[in-house]
Amino acid sequence: MKKSDCFSIEQSIVHPLIQCSFVSRTVKEHSYEIMESLDLFDISNPTLNDQCFEKKEAGKRCFIVIDDNVYHIYGHSILNYFKFYNIEYGIKVLTVSEKTKTIDSVLAVANELDQFNLSRRNEPMIAIGGGVLTDICSLTANLYRRSTECIKIPTTLMGQIDAAIGVKTGINFNGNKNRLGTYYSSGKVLIDRTFLQSLGDRAFNNGLSEILKMALIKEPVLFELLEKHKFAICKDRMLGKNDYSTIIQLSIKSMLEELAPNLWEKSLERVVDFGHTFSPVLEMKAVGDLYHGEAVSIDMAYSVLLAHEKGVMSKEDLDRALNLFVDLGLPTDHALCTQDLLITALDDTCTHRAGKQNFPLPVTIGKSTFSNDITHDEIAKIVHRMKSLHVELV
Amino acid sequence: MKKSDCFSIEQSIVHPLIQCSFVSRTVKEHSYEIMESLDLFDISNPTLNDQCFEKKEAGKRCFIVIDDNVYHIYGHSILNYFKFYNIEYGIKVLTVSEKTKTIDSVLAVANELDQFNLSRRNEPMIAIGGGVLTDICSLTANLYRRSTECIKIPTTLMGQIDAAIGVKTGINFNGNKNRLGTYYSSGKVLIDRTFLQSLGDRAFNNGLSEILKMALIKEPVLFELLEKHKFAICKDRMLGKNDYSTIIQLSIKSMLEELAPNLWEKSLERVVDFGHTFSPVLEMKAVGDLYHGEAVSIDMAYSVLLAHEKGVMSKEDLDRALNLFVDLGLPTDHALCTQDLLITALDDTCTHRAGKQNFPLPVTIGKSTFSNDITHDEIAKIVHRMKSLHVELV
Ligand SMILES: NC(=O)c1ccc[n+]([C@@H]2O[C@H](COP(=O)([O-])OP(=O)(O)OC[C@H]3O[C@@H](n4cnc5c(N)ncnc54)[C@H](O)[C@@H]3O)[C@@H](O)[C@H]2O)c1
Ligand SMILES: NC(=O)c1ccc[n+]([C@@H]2O[C@H](COP(=O)([O-])OP(=O)(O)OC[C@H]3O[C@@H](n4cnc5c(N)ncnc54)[C@H](O)[C@@H]3O)[C@@H](O)[C@H]2O)c1
Repeated sequence: MKKSDCFSIEQSIVHPLIQCSFVSRTVKEHSYEIMESLDLFDISNPTLNDQCFEKKEAGKRCFIVIDDNVYHIYGHSILNYFKFYNIEYGIKVLTVSEKTKTIDSVLAVANELDQFNLSRRNEPMIAIGGGVLTDICSLTANLYRRSTECIKIPTTLMGQIDAAIGVKTGINFNGNKNRLGTYYSSGKVLIDRTFLQSLGDRAFNNGLSEILKMALIKEPVLFELLEKHKFAICKDRMLGKNDYSTIIQLSIKSMLEELAPNLWEKSLERVVDFGHTFSPVLEMKAVGDLYHGEAVSIDMAYSVLLAHEKGVMSKEDLDRALNLFVDLGLPTDHALCTQDLLITALDDTCTHRAGKQNFPLPVTIGKSTFSNDITHDEIAKIVHRMKSLHVELV
Repeated sequence: MKKSDCFSIEQSIVHPLIQCSFVSRTVKEHSYEIMESLDLFDISNPTLNDQCFEKKEAGKRCFIVIDDNVYHIYGHSILNYFKFYNIEYGIKVLTVSEKTKTIDSVLAVANELDQFNLSRRNEPMIAIGGGVLTDICSLTANLYRRSTECIKIPTTLMGQIDAAIGVKTGINFNGNKNRLGTYYSSGKVLIDRTFLQSLGDRAFNNGLSEILKMALIKEPVLFELLEKHKFAICKDRMLGKNDYSTIIQLSIKSMLEELAPNLWEKSLERVVDFGHTFSPVLEMKAVGDLYHGEAVSIDMAYSVLLAHEKGVMSKEDLDRALNLFVDLGLPTDHALCTQDLLITALDDTCTHRAGKQNFPLPVTIGKSTFSNDITHDEIAKIVHRMKSLHVELV
C-alpha cells in the first residue's frame, strides 16, 4: 500500500428522477506509533527530542498541555528537558476531572494554541497526563485547524494501556460520558512506566483491571505473568523487573490488535467490551465510590461466574480467575450489585449493541466467545453465587 | 479493495533506550455519494425517502436542522414530505450567519439530538441550508457520539458546488474563520437546483464565482458553457436548460477530482486555491461589504492578469477571461486592492502554504500551473494595469 491516498470518482445515472450520482472514494492509511521508553524526561534520554522533533526544518516549537497533578510532581524536570534540548514551548497546566472534561477545557486549550500561534503543520501539541487529559487534548488537536499533531504521554496505567493508545477522543456533555468526541490519531504515543510511581494504589489498580481484562479474554501468557507477580506488581508500580516490560507490551499489543481492525467501531462484537456490560450502570449508581476500573473488575468477576454457569468455562479456570482478582487486590463485588441492577445493565448494553447482547465470555483463561442467550435466570444464579462467595469490596 | 479495513501491527526494538515500538496501521475506505435530483421535497419524488431510509430496519427517524431563511420559504413542503413518507422527525430551525457559526450552535444542535434521543447507528441528521449551516451540522454530526450520519442538502449555489460536497467541517473561533473543525463525511449529499430560485442575485453570484474558478483553472468545457449562457444563467437561477445540469455536474465533478486525492489537505499544491491568495485579506478588510465569492472573483481577475504578465497566458485568453467576469456580473476589482494589500496577502498566504507561494495560475483557459516566483514588481504592474482597465465593482 502506497503512502499516498488512492481515490476514484464514479459518475452514473441511477434513476429517472436522479440527474446524476457521484461516488467519491478515497482509501487512506491511518497509522500511529507507540513507543516504550523509561525516564523520558531525563536529559540523558534523547527519545522525545529525536522522535518528535528531529525531522523538523524550522526551529523546534511545541505546546505542552499537562495535568496539574503531574505538573506538580514532574513539572520541573519536564521543563528542564525542553530547555536542555532547545525546544521552544508554550504550556497550559490543566486541572482535570470528569467534571471539567468538557468543551470549556477544549476551548481553553484551543485559545492557548491561538495565543502561542502554533503551526498545525510542524509544531506538535504534547499532552502529558491521565486519560482525562489525553482525551481532552486529542480532541482539541483534532479540532484545531482541522488537525494538529498531538503527541500523547500517558501518566496513568489506564492511559498507558488503554486511554492514550487508541484513537478515541472525547468529552462529557449534557451529563453523558464522552457524548462528544472523534476518532483521531496524529502523533506518537510515548509510554514511560516511571510515571506510575506517584500513582496511588487505587489509581494503579484502576489500570491493572484493564490489563486483567486482556489477560482473561485473550492473552494466556499475560495471565500467567500477572499470576507470577500478583503480590508485587502494585507495590513495584511495574518497575524493576523485565517481566513488567513484557506485561505492558503484551497489554498494549493485545489492545491494539482489538482496536486496529475496528478503529471506527463499526463492529459491535468487541472482546474489549468484556467487563463493560454491567459496569456502566454500576459505575453510575456508585458514582464517587467506585473507580471505572473497579466497576470493570466487578463486572468481570460476575462475567467469569456467568461463563461457568453457562458451562463454557471450567470450575478450575473459574477458581484460578477469581483467586487472581483477590490476590491482585481487585474487587469482585459491591453491595449495589443486585439481580435487578445486573438485568437493567444487561438490557441497557443490549440497546447500545444494536439490540444484541454480544456478551464476551471467557471459555478458558485467555480465550473467549460471544454469547447472545443470557437469561434473567442465569443472572439470578450468579448474583446468588457471588454473594455466597463473600468476597466483598473492602 | 475490500470494504473491511485492513490493518497490521508491527512490533520492533528501535534503540537501546526504547524498550519497544508498535506501529498500528489501518487502511480505511472513506466514501460518500452526491446525487442531483430536482424538487426533492415534492412528494412525487421518492429520492430522499428511498436513498436515505429504505434500508433501515426500525421505524424511520431523523433529526432535521434547517436554516431559518430556508425554513421560512420551504418549511411547509419539507415537513409535509416527511409526514407523507412516514418519517418521524425532530427539527431545529437555526438562525445562521458567520457570527453564529460558533461552538454554541454546535452544542445547541447536539443538545437537541440528545433530547430527541437520536440513535447514532441508524438515524441520520438531515442538514438543510447554506454553507454555514452544513459546516455547523457536519461538525456536530462528527462529534455526536463520535460520528452520526449527516445527510446534507445544500440550498445555496456555494453549498451545492463547494461547501457541502467536500469533507471539511468548521466553525469560527476567537475571531478566526473555521479555526475549529474536522474532516468528516458520512451520509449522502442531495443537490436540488430548485432551491436556487429564492436566492438573491449576489448570493447566486457568490457561488457562480467558484464555478468560474473551476472553469478557468481546469474545465475548458465548463468555461464554454458559462460563455454560452452568461447572460441568462443568473436570471434563470440554473433552471430550465439541460446545459445547467451539465454545468452543475461539471462543477461538482471537477471539485471532487481536486478534493478526493487530497481529502486531508496534506498537499499544499491545490488548484482549488486559485482565487484564494489575495481574497482572504481583502475579505477581512472589506468585511460586510464583499461576499466571499466576490473577493474570490476579484482575486481571480488579478490572477489572470498576473498569468498574462508572467507570460504564461496569452492576451487572447486573458481578454476572453476578463470579458466573462464582466458578462456574468462578477466583480474584478475593489477600491481596497492596492499594491500593498496584494503583497501583504501574498506573504500571508505563503505562511499558510508552508513558506511556498504555490500560486495556481491559468496557462490557457482550463489549464493551470503553480508559480513560486511572483515578485513585488509583478504585483505592482498588475495593480497598475487593473486600475487602468476601469472595471470597478459597482
Ligand atoms: N480514549 C479512550 O479510548 C479511553 C479509554 C479508556 C478510558 N478513557 C478515559 O480515561 C479517563 C480515565 O483516565 P485515568 O484513569 O487516567 O484518570 P485521570 O486522567 O482522571 O487520572 C487519575 C488521577 O491521577 C492523576 N495523575 C495522573 N498521572 C499521575 C501520576 N503519574 N502520578 C500521580 N497522579 C497522577 C490525575 O491528575 C487524576 O487526578 C476517563 O475519562 C475515560 O473516559 C478513554
Ligand atoms: N466546508 C467547506 O469545504 C466549505 C467550502 C466553501 C465555503 N464554506 C463555508 O460556507 C459558508 C458560506 O456558505 P454560503 O455562501 O452558502 O452562505 P450562507 O450559508 O450564509 O447562506 C447565505 C444566505 O442565504 C440564505 N439562504 C440559504 N439558502 C437559501 C435559499 N435557498 N433561498 C434563500 N436564501 C437562502 C441563508 O440563510 C444565508 O442568509 C462559509 O462559512 C464558508 O466558510 C465551506
